[in-house]
Amino acid sequence: MKTFDEALDILLSKAVLTTQTERVSITHALGRVLAQNITSALNVPPHHNSMMDGYAVCANDAHEIKAGKVFTISQCIAAGMIGQPLEQGTVARIFTGAAMPEGADSVIMQEEATEIEGGVKFSVTSFQSSQNVRHIGEDIARGAVVLSKGHKLRAQDLGLITSIGIAEVEVYQPLTIATFTTGDELLEPGEQAKAGKIYNANRYILAGLVPRLGFELIDLGRVPDTLEATIVALKQAASVADVVITTGGVSVGDEDHIKPAVEQVGHLDLWKVKMKPGKPLAYGEVAGKPFIGLPGNPVSAFSTFNLFARPFLLKMQGQQKVRLTPLWLKANFDWSKKGFRRDFVRAQLESCGQETVVNLFPNQGSGVLTSTVWAEGLAVIPEDSTIEKGDLVAYYAFNEMTS
Amino acid sequence: MKTFDEALDILLSKAVLTTQTERVSITHALGRVLAQNITSALNVPPHHNSMMDGYAVCANDAHEIKAGKVFTISQCIAAGMIGQPLEQGTVARIFTGAAMPEGADSVIMQEEATEIEGGVKFSVTSFQSSQNVRHIGEDIARGAVVLSKGHKLRAQDLGLITSIGIAEVEVYQPLTIATFTTGDELLEPGEQAKAGKIYNANRYILAGLVPRLGFELIDLGRVPDTLEATIVALKQAASVADVVITTGGVSVGDEDHIKPAVEQVGHLDLWKVKMKPGKPLAYGEVAGKPFIGLPGNPVSAFSTFNLFARPFLLKMQGQQKVRLTPLWLKANFDWSKKGFRRDFVRAQLESCGQETVVNLFPNQGSGVLTSTVWAEGLAVIPEDSTIEKGDLVAYYAFNEMTS
Repeated sequence: MKTFDEALDILLSKAVLTTQTERVSITHALGRVLAQNITSALNVPPHHNSMMDGYAVCANDAHEIKAGKVFTISQCIAAGMIGQPLEQGTVARIFTGAAMPEGADSVIMQEEATEIEGGVKFSVTSFQSSQNVRHIGEDIARGAVVLSKGHKLRAQDLGLITSIGIAEVEVYQPLTIATFTTGDELLEPGEQAKAGKIYNANRYILAGLVPRLGFELIDLGRVPDTLEATIVALKQAASVADVVITTGGVSVGDEDHIKPAVEQVGHLDLWKVKMKPGKPLAYGEVAGKPFIGLPGNPVSAFSTFNLFARPFLLKMQGQQKVRLTPLWLKANFDWSKKGFRRDFVRAQLESCGQETVVNLFPNQGSGVLTSTVWAEGLAVIPEDSTIEKGDLVAYYAFNEMTS
Repeated sequence: MKTFDEALDILLSKAVLTTQTERVSITHALGRVLAQNITSALNVPPHHNSMMDGYAVCANDAHEIKAGKVFTISQCIAAGMIGQPLEQGTVARIFTGAAMPEGADSVIMQEEATEIEGGVKFSVTSFQSSQNVRHIGEDIARGAVVLSKGHKLRAQDLGLITSIGIAEVEVYQPLTIATFTTGDELLEPGEQAKAGKIYNANRYILAGLVPRLGFELIDLGRVPDTLEATIVALKQAASVADVVITTGGVSVGDEDHIKPAVEQVGHLDLWKVKMKPGKPLAYGEVAGKPFIGLPGNPVSAFSTFNLFARPFLLKMQGQQKVRLTPLWLKANFDWSKKGFRRDFVRAQLESCGQETVVNLFPNQGSGVLTSTVWAEGLAVIPEDSTIEKGDLVAYYAFNEMTS
């Protein structure tokens, strides 16, 4: 048996970074992983500019400003305009984002100004040189790397990239993941319920998890429950996709054909991982493509996809950060039964007053899919451990797993 | 001036739930919001079944089982099959998920069994009636509401819905959001940098935020900086979309035409919200459609979209949970300058040992877009407050905002 950490380390060591990249417009780059560093050719902001609507002044005039002297407004500078050098002893009307004119170094906001016949006077409560001015290169200096290869692009990243004038980026092509399900006991939703049959939930769990992470899903549907059909499906999956993922059929003694079929067209390692849910996990190769066999139980399939397949796929996809960072929070439950396996329990956070605590779904049975629907994340009960209310536990939010 | 909470309450009170629903296949339901309760017509599991590969036995035979008696294997039951009633004094070979035969109530896992000539004997370390059996309706009882109207569908929810045989669900049609930008100082990425001009980052921030939440974006691009063109754009936006969102141009004294244009085709309230970044926020109506005017500063636009526009849109979309739940975590920083506004500072979590703390980006200037790129969430500095390292602060993860 492998510990959870051993299994994850081995799995990640097998993940080979994709080499397929493409150049895409920034309007198609959301959720894509950078295959290049983004370096700025510009200073941001490109010039000293005003943070406010107000008046550009010279700090040398501080004394007269505070004394309430009336200043001539020698020019008016809107965003996008380049003003004239400021005439000594005058001020310029200026708007947010507009470049500061030469000779001006500070901005007084319009709320502290009164325009009167012949000019403007100020009633400042305090005045400091450089106030309300953003300086050239303050946000980004020319030549700086603003985003690194391996970063997954979010909305604010697109904003940053466009703010330095870049319209296209080199990203990795999204991995394609082929899935199929086998099992004569499976019904598709919409089919009539029958004694001894169960609905094929795993197919639709994968159909949600895979695209949400930005991968392309090729769902080959349900395959007849014979060795020959399974081999055909595996070969087809490997020929169209970068990775093949199935659920079920990999336990010792299983009636299913996945295991012998994979062994005919590639190879398979069956791992017993000291974790719960999700003990049996298979890793192998089908016609040169990585194969991951998740457990057949839906809760186990969901958990092991997030805990194993996700980091494996993110690494192949070129993403820098593949492991989840735990949140350490107080348990609002007791866990008295020590187990030799690491238990990933379905949990929810509750914030009350100034405290955030972790609650558990009452039925942690690995057949109980409602637990993952109630839950917003997984909390960890370490191996050979009990938990008392108030102890710190590691928590992983589902929203972090799907991002 | 309004407090943050007042502004959010008013805004949410204006959000009118969409009435447009549609029936979609479960394969197109990811990220959609349920317009119906989902009620189960089935028990899940539909019958008592085995949690393991092993042997179905009758607990009445516990004594003989523990004593190592050799039992006849009277049948073999795979998943999907319905076995015969168990002959007294025998056991049935059974596989994971298979229905328990009548007369059997417990399963012994195969690791505790040895098949020998004439049958099987067990070496159990413990034995309890009902062990390793999932009971009928244990996960879902017939008639139970498993998901409520207003729930946004995740992968595990799709799994649950299909597990009770449902193939189609009634969901709200995604809202369409029209956006455009105005401002002669704006350049599009790819255009040559020019003195006095800045790149139009807000357009691409919205182009990331809006679709990520599941809405349809209609990006009307950049509109010439005249009152007439702005009116035309507003009318067009309102005619094609459910909501109109723009950035910039709504401050007092602004050179932009958004404010007078909205007032000509509808009405506009300008709010000064006691928050930072993001003071000026506009809410109004354009030709009967809600209008939200975000600040022009990219950090402010990003923050106010997430803090105001997001909950407003989610409520219109029919989503039950629209407000973010704070995580209360220890500050790993000091904040000595009290402000009268609520400060949403760009932050990151760090977990070390068994502690998770909140770190701040050093430059919290609202012009500094790199802060939102470095950050993974926002921490809250309350009005009129200072923070000392170790104090608890509210933290909102970006990944929660985009889910």
